[in-house]
Amino acid sequence: MTDIATIEAAAFRLAGHARRTPLLSSPVLDALAGRQVLIKAECLQHTGSFKFRGGWSAVSGIDAEARERGVIAFSSGNHAQGMAAAAKAHGCPCVILMPSDAPPVKIARTRALGAEVILYDRVKDDRQAMGDALAAERGLTLVPPFDHPLVIAGQASIGLELAEQAAHLGLLRADVLLPCSGGGLAAGVALAAESRAPGLRVRPVEPEGFDDMARSLASGAPCRNARLTGSVCDAILSPEPGKLTLPVLQRLAGPGLSVTDDQALEAMALAFRHLRIVVEPGGAVALAAALFRAEEIEGDTVIAIASGGNVDEDLFIATLQRFA
Amino acid sequence: MTDIATIEAAAFRLAGHARRTPLLSSPVLDALAGRQVLIKAECLQHTGSFKFRGGWSAVSGIDAEARERGVIAFSSGNHAQGMAAAAKAHGCPCVILMPSDAPPVKIARTRALGAEVILYDRVKDDRQAMGDALAAERGLTLVPPFDHPLVIAGQASIGLELAEQAAHLGLLRADVLLPCSGGGLAAGVALAAESRAPGLRVRPVEPEGFDDMARSLASGAPCRNARLTGSVCDAILSPEPGKLTLPVLQRLAGPGLSVTDDQALEAMALAFRHLRIVVEPGGAVALAAALFRAEEIEGDTVIAIASGGNVDEDLFIATLQRFA
Repeated sequence: MTDIATIEAAAFRLAGHARRTPLLSSPVLDALAGRQVLIKAECLQHTGSFKFRGGWSAVSGIDAEARERGVIAFSSGNHAQGMAAAAKAHGCPCVILMPSDAPPVKIARTRALGAEVILYDRVKDDRQAMGDALAAERGLTLVPPFDHPLVIAGQASIGLELAEQAAHLGLLRADVLLPCSGGGLAAGVALAAESRAPGLRVRPVEPEGFDDMARSLASGAPCRNARLTGSVCDAILSPEPGKLTLPVLQRLAGPGLSVTDDQALEAMALAFRHLRIVVEPGGAVALAAALFRAEEIEGDTVIAIASGGNVDEDLFIATLQRFA
Repeated sequence: MTDIATIEAAAFRLAGHARRTPLLSSPVLDALAGRQVLIKAECLQHTGSFKFRGGWSAVSGIDAEARERGVIAFSSGNHAQGMAAAAKAHGCPCVILMPSDAPPVKIARTRALGAEVILYDRVKDDRQAMGDALAAERGLTLVPPFDHPLVIAGQASIGLELAEQAAHLGLLRADVLLPCSGGGLAAGVALAAESRAPGLRVRPVEPEGFDDMARSLASGAPCRNARLTGSVCDAILSPEPGKLTLPVLQRLAGPGLSVTDDQALEAMALAFRHLRIVVEPGGAVALAAALFRAEEIEGDTVIAIASGGNVDEDLFIATLQRFA
């Protein structure tokens, strides 16, 4: 499993390659939330999401021979771009399986980063089986989007940064709200915090109806989402928690939160207006929870990770107009 | 005049209050520009522009008795918000003279920060005379938007950050393109670079038709703009260079550049798409020059300061649609 040495090793490989993203805030958002809200703007990361960290950690962390043969990944778009960019920088061949209903901007950008993109049907196809077959056929190393020790270690570098940033602010205790799909970001940040900032507690945030992680944490057993599509938060619709991530979160995370699609969209508009950052709906759910589920949060200060910013522009424009 | 000691003193007062803004980049923008473009995302600063630095430097740098009586400023919007936020944090009364055609969002936000806003007509009224009269009447200290040693010293803190960030990247020589109105940002960064990163050369960028600084630098004497309004770059339409700033830039800056309104708007759309930041037109002119005036720039790498992000949303939406 991912221990603190694995995490700090990943952070070392990422140094000078991943951006150290800023903690932002706005008095308007603080007033809305009724407490101080610090937003970790991971949408400013290379490729526009935290997934660059996990991708880089994996590509740089596997052995050189495997890297030369290449990597393969499946992703709704952000892990795809993170992997593609990391592979390109390492001169490593990269195949990406993407759902055919992923935002066109994410597909186009993954291709622009030099990856070979293969589309699959999110409902009908078994992406795991497709990935396994391609990996075997071409000798590629499969890097899953969350359930992999090196991927979790890469996302955990956000937790190390938060530990430093919180200490710098004299912030000893706070909940860290973060968008959650399979749990790679959540587990990584939780493990980093456990060792380096034990007063920071992770709380996963999901779209309503896709709250498999919250239900799994509450019930003590892995739960699956009834639906596989149907939320605007396309980046975070994994069907169930990861096998590696769930036990970590059972041990370390606080209760999960969920927000409506409309709340995620309004948070996206507010981040544009008051933080001057571009966040995608799935990346905005933690901020949405900070703003609109304030009664389920404790403490004077909450940290919300804005995990990605690869949004379709028509949706972004419509959202700004709707929440003007 | 503003020397390096004044600048480092301002940076000390700003530490822990101003954000250290990140240097961003995108392979797409690099390809468009034909060289590496590093964007200093000062739109992520408190109040959405670099003006917070100058405002904080001035409010914190005047003597305590004057601070208690209060400050007054005139501004098209960004200096207004920077001053208002700095004054509020210091418990200092603040009056702001704003042009009546400033974007409503800037007027509203300045009022929300607790300042008393008085509107004036940009063409008919003499804002300097109005400010002087109010200052005398109420015992307020006038903090002009650029021509003041403490304001220049505050903006110069960006130059100190760039010196560190460039050194960290091993970047010894580069042009620093920056949006220029009266020249406070330009002079501050130039002075900081002179002492701490002499390989960084400032080049002011202005909207076409409002290139008083470029013409003043080229001719050796202060030039005035023929028009006072008529560019979408509302933040940077000062009629002439500052009396303190021009001599600094005559000594230290490279030739000025100018861009069309359409180029500023397209740069704003590209910053949204590829950097996930919100920049206003006047804040985007340096990036526009990096992208669209590449033949007038030398070197493998250029730094462009994205100086502010307080844009009217209707204009932003129309621009995204136009440059889709």
